[in-house]
Amino acid sequence: MRLRNKPWAKDKLLEYPQYVVHEPEQHRGRWNELFAAAQPLHIEIGTGKGRFITEMARANPNINYIGIELQESVIVSALDRLIEAGLPNCKLMNVNAAELEKYFASGDVNRVYLNFSDPWPKTRHEKRRLTYASFLSVYEQILVDQGEIHFKTDNQGLFEYSLMSFSHYGLLMKFVSLDLHNSGFEGNIMTEYEEKFSSRGNRIYRCEVQYPKK
Amino acid sequence: MRLRNKPWAKDKLLEYPQYVVHEPEQHRGRWNELFAAAQPLHIEIGTGKGRFITEMARANPNINYIGIELQESVIVSALDRLIEAGLPNCKLMNVNAAELEKYFASGDVNRVYLNFSDPWPKTRHEKRRLTYASFLSVYEQILVDQGEIHFKTDNQGLFEYSLMSFSHYGLLMKFVSLDLHNSGFEGNIMTEYEEKFSSRGNRIYRCEVQYPKK
Ligand SMILES: C[S@@+](CC[C@H](N)C(=O)[O-])C[C@H]1O[C@@H](n2cnc3c(N)ncnc32)[C@H](O)[C@@H]1O
Ligand SMILES: C[S@@+](CC[C@H](N)C(=O)[O-])C[C@H]1O[C@@H](n2cnc3c(N)ncnc32)[C@H](O)[C@@H]1O
Repeated sequence: MRLRNKPWAKDKLLEYPQYVVHEPEQHRGRWNELFAAAQPLHIEIGTGKGRFITEMARANPNINYIGIELQESVIVSALDRLIEAGLPNCKLMNVNAAELEKYFASGDVNRVYLNFSDPWPKTRHEKRRLTYASFLSVYEQILVDQGEIHFKTDNQGLFEYSLMSFSHYGLLMKFVSLDLHNSGFEGNIMTEYEEKFSSRGNRIYRCEVQYPKK
Repeated sequence: MRLRNKPWAKDKLLEYPQYVVHEPEQHRGRWNELFAAAQPLHIEIGTGKGRFITEMARANPNINYIGIELQESVIVSALDRLIEAGLPNCKLMNVNAAELEKYFASGDVNRVYLNFSDPWPKTRHEKRRLTYASFLSVYEQILVDQGEIHFKTDNQGLFEYSLMSFSHYGLLMKFVSLDLHNSGFEGNIMTEYEEKFSSRGNRIYRCEVQYPKK
């Protein structure tokens, strides 16, 4: 994600507490209280400009969503989108995914979405990939029993790596598509990156993996 | 594989006992006696016209190979190739892979190759796919502890299915390439189908999976 310097971003995030979660550690173990309805919680990690999370929230009013994004200069675009959409079941959180255990208790989260995560192609950056073992462990800590990760990307190397990483971690491959847009898969909601890279002719890979019984 | 009627095929296979294994059940538990050298045994299932197995045997004289093929009208072409190559570490077997436990004892086989297996795309034919659970169980019976399957195909649907089938069976994904011919993978030996379908522009998928410790 190309970063523009937006010195006003931090203030803007603070102006919308109904959409941007502040002091998320306060909600650990009781996220339902923050939303209009007590219902399953799905989170997207690396939400970027927020198209996926807001469209998912619009399409699935019976699920609560939180989009998690490290860069405040990026998440403000997601905030603009969310202000316009005005959804009661969608929030944003400006934190690092590596620290999610601080904010979510075991079982707080029903599903994790990873979309077009940064590929970090160099081996020495493997630990930064959101499908690296240490991240899979974080997701396991906060997910329900037999929780799932739904992952898509156009990056062949990252997808190959992730298939191996999921397998080594003991995750079950419940679904895999090696060409999502030509697969007859229904109800796909495109992310900003997905639109950009599929329009250049890149294939989109997608899989659903499940943690074993605790 | 398009089948031509070759009534003479059966007789020809019988004429070359040094290359075509007859009464394979006789060698169960002692395959090394049949070969010039006692060394690891790799088998290919659905060997077709035999290019892969003979080229592998030529490139790896320290490994014994057996190509297994159901159709006698197809395996005779592999025999022609093997006669010409005259290799001491390569044999052929005209049997159904579903019955391999009759011919191999536990630990007789060090590796299984599956190349461009018939895709059987209809769900009602799932059980015929060579990566269906019942076949994975057969391979497990005859392989060494932590034995591996090396699989390649250009068929996207079969590859997707197989990734899920391997995962459900508890196999570890040690290697995966979603575009073998553009991956920098070294020492690839092409099969007849691989040459044909890659020359039409199809991508080749490849993976290596490993059985868990017994
Ligand atoms: C390539 S962008 C994709 C954005 C969006 N998912 C899409 O598909 O359009 C990846 C995003 O992940 C964010 N990200 C990377 N590592 C992160 C982490 N550890 N925690 C939270 N967000 C992260 C980056 O800041 C970036 O905005
Ligand atoms: C599509 S061809 C591929 C041949 C070769 N591996 C290649 O890549 O050129 C698949 C072969 O597998 C064989 N086959 C299918 N099921 C089999 C089984 N259960 N046991 C042994 N061979 C089988 C078929 O007869 C056919 O020759």
